[in-house]
Amino acid sequence: MDKFRVIEVKQSIFKENDQHAGELRETLKEKGVFLLNLMSSPGAGKTTTLGRTIEALKEQMRIGVMEADIDSDVDAHTIADYGVKVIQLHTGGMCHLDAGMTEDGLNELGAEGLDLVILENVGNLVCPAEFDTGAVKNAMILSVPEGHDKPLKYPLMFQVCDVVLVNKIDVLPYFDFDMEKCTEYIHMRNPEAIIIPICARTGEGMEQWIQWLKEETAVWKK
Amino acid sequence: MDKFRVIEVKQSIFKENDQHAGELRETLKEKGVFLLNLMSSPGAGKTTTLGRTIEALKEQMRIGVMEADIDSDVDAHTIADYGVKVIQLHTGGMCHLDAGMTEDGLNELGAEGLDLVILENVGNLVCPAEFDTGAVKNAMILSVPEGHDKPLKYPLMFQVCDVVLVNKIDVLPYFDFDMEKCTEYIHMRNPEAIIIPICARTGEGMEQWIQWLKEETAVWKK
Repeated sequence: MDKFRVIEVKQSIFKENDQHAGELRETLKEKGVFLLNLMSSPGAGKTTTLGRTIEALKEQMRIGVMEADIDSDVDAHTIADYGVKVIQLHTGGMCHLDAGMTEDGLNELGAEGLDLVILENVGNLVCPAEFDTGAVKNAMILSVPEGHDKPLKYPLMFQVCDVVLVNKIDVLPYFDFDMEKCTEYIHMRNPEAIIIPICARTGEGMEQWIQWLKEETAVWKK
Repeated sequence: MDKFRVIEVKQSIFKENDQHAGELRETLKEKGVFLLNLMSSPGAGKTTTLGRTIEALKEQMRIGVMEADIDSDVDAHTIADYGVKVIQLHTGGMCHLDAGMTEDGLNELGAEGLDLVILENVGNLVCPAEFDTGAVKNAMILSVPEGHDKPLKYPLMFQVCDVVLVNKIDVLPYFDFDMEKCTEYIHMRNPEAIIIPICARTGEGMEQWIQWLKEETAVWKK
């Protein structure tokens, strides 16, 4: 520790956004809309996981999707093919969504009457964790190739997530990824976090995730 | 395209930072210090690549490293073991470094007299691309598991980088990663970008990268 020094750079707090997010959540409760905020690094598998999730649930629920991206419509086109309501949110360079942008998105989407809306946030482990979007629950995807040390480096992301999907478990043999350490590090940040190993490409492990999502949506609509 | 709508959210420009970065670059030129800004997603392999780079160059150059992280000293400890000057920059939640933080870091590090300083930026494909750190050149690492479509989704990152290292090519057989498409997409964003496929873990492809870095450092010091 004495081989290098530490420089701390402080950040201001986002009170106004938190208040807006709280109000948005109340509105969603009144309307019986369950909003899930799905986060991850770029390329961790958000869109593939989302596609599998829609396939499993679209006969039982009315689902809407908001695809947030800096640019491009790649993901919204992919999701539109699943036959659910989808809009693309272009952040125009911004690295996250806040409650205001989320509310605008919900209005554009026409969220009223939907049971479940999934917000696919910008691929980023930092900023999206700092801004409460108004979602009922937060989920994140950590993919095996990223490494099991990510909860040490991006503490807030793991702290704010109710569920961590550990994706791409099919390539575990090719990476130095220690699932036990990963679990330990995630629980250091958030002892309550539910950890579900999955392979979105093959569908492995998706049942537990789908079950969780169904139960949480049902509880929210009571 | 009519299956969903697009909402644009605009962002302000960072004039003050750009000016600060320009001044910092002039100072670095006077002192003959080559500053490289290394960016990537979380887990793409920045620290491993950096370790290999130091091993290859530390007998020929005086090298310093600045490790930027939200939290944790994992990477600075790893790099300190290579026997080069290193400091950890804690951003305290912030998602990027700007020119001011970089300059503070260089002062803390004691960059004067060094030939090459490498700044390992926060793992993030969005915000670090927006802030000129004052570096002479920008490099980024795109790892195979992230997918070849990343230049479509994170345009600015690829636009601002002089070099793109495509890392983890040892796992190409296990992922749907199309190197030709990747090259095409990167060049869509930046026709001048140098693309170097590598495997930092095994050392494959590193010679071209090391050569580029040596040449650029020599040119800068003239």
